[in-house]
Amino acid sequence: MSEQHREISVAEFFEKNRHLLGFNNPQKAIITCVKEAVDNSLDACEAERILPEIHVTIEEAGKNLRFQIKDNAVGISKEILPNIFGKLLYGSKFHRLQQSRGQQGIGISASGLYAQLTTGNPVKVYSKKKGSDTTHMFKVRIDTQKNEPEIIEDRVVDDYEFEHGTSIEMEIEGRYTKGHHSVRNYLKHTAIMNPYARIVLNEPDGNTIEFPRVSKTLPKIPKEIKPHPHGVELGVLMRMLSNSNSRTVNSFLQSEFTRVGKTSAEKIVEKAGLSGKERPVSLEKSDIRELLSAMQNTKLQNPPTSCLSPIGEDLMREGLKKELNPDFVASVTRSPSVYRGNPYQIEAAIAYGGDIDADGTFDALRFANKVPLLYKRSSCAATKAIKETDWSRYGLSQTGSSPKGPVVILVHMASVWVPFTSEGKEAIAQYPEIIKEMKLAVQEVGRKLKRYLSKKRKKKVLAKKRRKLSSYGAAMTPALEKLTGEDQDEIRGVLMETLKKKYGGINGELEEGGGK
Amino acid sequence: MSEQHREISVAEFFEKNRHLLGFNNPQKAIITCVKEAVDNSLDACEAERILPEIHVTIEEAGKNLRFQIKDNAVGISKEILPNIFGKLLYGSKFHRLQQSRGQQGIGISASGLYAQLTTGNPVKVYSKKKGSDTTHMFKVRIDTQKNEPEIIEDRVVDDYEFEHGTSIEMEIEGRYTKGHHSVRNYLKHTAIMNPYARIVLNEPDGNTIEFPRVSKTLPKIPKEIKPHPHGVELGVLMRMLSNSNSRTVNSFLQSEFTRVGKTSAEKIVEKAGLSGKERPVSLEKSDIRELLSAMQNTKLQNPPTSCLSPIGEDLMREGLKKELNPDFVASVTRSPSVYRGNPYQIEAAIAYGGDIDADGTFDALRFANKVPLLYKRSSCAATKAIKETDWSRYGLSQTGSSPKGPVVILVHMASVWVPFTSEGKEAIAQYPEIIKEMKLAVQEVGRKLKRYLSKKRKKKVLAKKRRKLSSYGAAMTPALEKLTGEDQDEIRGVLMETLKKKYGGINGELEEGGGK
Repeated sequence: MSEQHREISVAEFFEKNRHLLGFNNPQKAIITCVKEAVDNSLDACEAERILPEIHVTIEEAGKNLRFQIKDNAVGISKEILPNIFGKLLYGSKFHRLQQSRGQQGIGISASGLYAQLTTGNPVKVYSKKKGSDTTHMFKVRIDTQKNEPEIIEDRVVDDYEFEHGTSIEMEIEGRYTKGHHSVRNYLKHTAIMNPYARIVLNEPDGNTIEFPRVSKTLPKIPKEIKPHPHGVELGVLMRMLSNSNSRTVNSFLQSEFTRVGKTSAEKIVEKAGLSGKERPVSLEKSDIRELLSAMQNTKLQNPPTSCLSPIGEDLMREGLKKELNPDFVASVTRSPSVYRGNPYQIEAAIAYGGDIDADGTFDALRFANKVPLLYKRSSCAATKAIKETDWSRYGLSQTGSSPKGPVVILVHMASVWVPFTSEGKEAIAQYPEIIKEMKLAVQEVGRKLKRYLSKKRKKKVLAKKRRKLSSYGAAMTPALEKLTGEDQDEIRGVLMETLKKKYGGINGELEEGGGK
Repeated sequence: MSEQHREISVAEFFEKNRHLLGFNNPQKAIITCVKEAVDNSLDACEAERILPEIHVTIEEAGKNLRFQIKDNAVGISKEILPNIFGKLLYGSKFHRLQQSRGQQGIGISASGLYAQLTTGNPVKVYSKKKGSDTTHMFKVRIDTQKNEPEIIEDRVVDDYEFEHGTSIEMEIEGRYTKGHHSVRNYLKHTAIMNPYARIVLNEPDGNTIEFPRVSKTLPKIPKEIKPHPHGVELGVLMRMLSNSNSRTVNSFLQSEFTRVGKTSAEKIVEKAGLSGKERPVSLEKSDIRELLSAMQNTKLQNPPTSCLSPIGEDLMREGLKKELNPDFVASVTRSPSVYRGNPYQIEAAIAYGGDIDADGTFDALRFANKVPLLYKRSSCAATKAIKETDWSRYGLSQTGSSPKGPVVILVHMASVWVPFTSEGKEAIAQYPEIIKEMKLAVQEVGRKLKRYLSKKRKKKVLAKKRRKLSSYGAAMTPALEKLTGEDQDEIRGVLMETLKKKYGGINGELEEGGGK
């Protein structure tokens, strides 16, 4: 029995279970690859306060697809580059409480794993650090059985056109399609949520699509925070205590957690029946249990929200306007909230009319940390929040539980840790508190839409009345001429002025609601 | 940048993403723990041809649940025991093509991880090998940052009542509930699909439920097979070639794949433009591509299905009868089929009437390798197959796309590799070929149900007629007595005999269709 038991490398595991990472089929595979690379580029640019400029080029290569994704970030240092592309579960974001697109350290290395599985080719990476003269070129594979990178080639090139940044090239088994589930739609949604980025897509048929930059304002950079005492679990607390360098439990609490000052620390240790002077490593399990219970039952400020980087109401509207060209758009950024100790913030927007197709089946624009979610709609908290909202109350008709008409609803969750339903990061898990916040957000923009729609309806009614009255007026003018002896032009002028007084301004633009 | 990058252990990853493994909430957590332990016990018993006897005991311990799961398998050797409970991605089943309940090497160690995260307690395991006098007791934790077991205690005990087997004890944050999502329902479904097992559940309220053994026939033991040439991918073929001990490509093909004999191997190498005498490690990438294409385009027998262990039509009916007590039951085991080179087999059954609740919302009994699937119904291939079937054609009414009435439908997928939608193994991914096979299976049992229902309806009509006629007869008897002069008993006898001739046997049991 025992000789058959062995360790399974995480790369082997995901190779066999690649559908968990979004590599279910060739059509989805190319979207997943582009997504992982673009996410990394945007994260890297934002961290360095660079306005992102990303070029995605996809070509057909026999039955496969070859793609290149090039950014203007600061490049990747050659010490970590092989691990980033050749090792699953490796990264800088997993152990930090700070909003970012990547969080698991799986994405881009999984793309490389898929490339070598389906075409046998390694990943090719060019990287040029900012300020450096040289561009490094790497060809990297993954040793699947060890989950370790294998460097096939590593040299300095001088013929690569680059100011600074990273360029990734892979060849995969893939199929390029158009429609909802497509690279183009993925990038369109990305452009809506990241209007400070310029993204250019070269499609296999030679077509070029540019998603232009409409804002030069980068969102504020999120700060890393420490865990909040209300969100920690026993096993984690035990590990933190045994790893701690603090000399006392009191100082441990203050240095390893957010929102714990001297007073709170004293309250906690007192409640736990401790003096606070104990060495963290010396605590017994029963003491730790008491400590945890005291931490959870002591009133503390909510975690700071400087770790979050929502897109903001203005940019959300900008993004929707530039890509959808609607008649009306409204947006809201809710106050931050907390689930299991993790700060998060919900944003929502609604766009109506204009170029939005009235007959299309409704689909929400779902985002997590500014990344579009295209798949697993029905398992997503955002979908649930929209479906649980009664849209007839906001002036829209419904098909089933979805709103109907020329309307698009956007929901964004920004958090230090988004609870995805799978490694492929395709849907947000249905935590009741998250759904509740999302509902409040979509209802808020729903109310704004309702005001717009009822004004629009009122305007329509008034315009109809005015048209009717003015045609009566025109018909009556000869009679009035006879009765009053006045000139017809004079009579028409008086009639029009009267109508204008009563129904005036009705052809003007609405100011409220942020419409175009 | 580089100093912030680091490796993420797979245990850390799943600790933070524990919802991926089925530890979403306390209610689900206890079901997941029981499931993982019971799966392992059943696998172990079957492998050793032991009729399984499993005792599950759950107690409340303050806000937590403590449970013990004890089997009569052959125990676990002490060399591998710490890894089995203290290391994620470790096991004997991942690298083998052979049907088993476990396949990923995550289940039971993840339960241990959850236990120590929520209660700080290690897993306690008693194991007694068959034929041995001593019982080993281990207390094991996981070093989460390393994904390595930490043995807290390891000693021989002689006071533990045990013939042979394994007993696992854990304490977790959990909530014991009844209803669809419950340990009891999970074990009930397990009992249906494993009628050769005896399972006893002691609930926290002191209640004991026994799921008795109704069959002493263990299903045949599945055999391990080699990969089939039609299901291999380029990256895997490259790895197999470079790891191979074979001296020639020709012998490599014959020894590492199933269904490749001398003739097929020669056909393949010829199609690939090779001589077959090349050393496997010496092949260039372009040669390997040609070889793969030749393998995929050479006609070969389907993989052997000795690797599968379906439950079989009789046992399926037995299981449903004993747990549901229906009026009618029918079952089918389809011929084996192949998806991506993996052999699989679909079984289905339908139960109708009797103790089955007619008003309950319909829920299918879904199984993968004999393991009940309780969650993620809507993402499961089995649900899709049932919803895409028009049940009105089989004599049932429908609510939405689900059948209505006192009916239960069972779908089972047996395979060397079940494509689950998540690590928690809760639903079968919707591969079109799998859905198609499932539809054929449920339609087959649907047709059997239709025959039963139409016979039943006919019988009902006949019985009504007979009742009517016999009451006419009774009313007419005095008149007939006058007319014929015969004795009333005589007349009644003749009438009844005539009716019986015409509508006879209508109170007897139906024989066809496997009814009770």
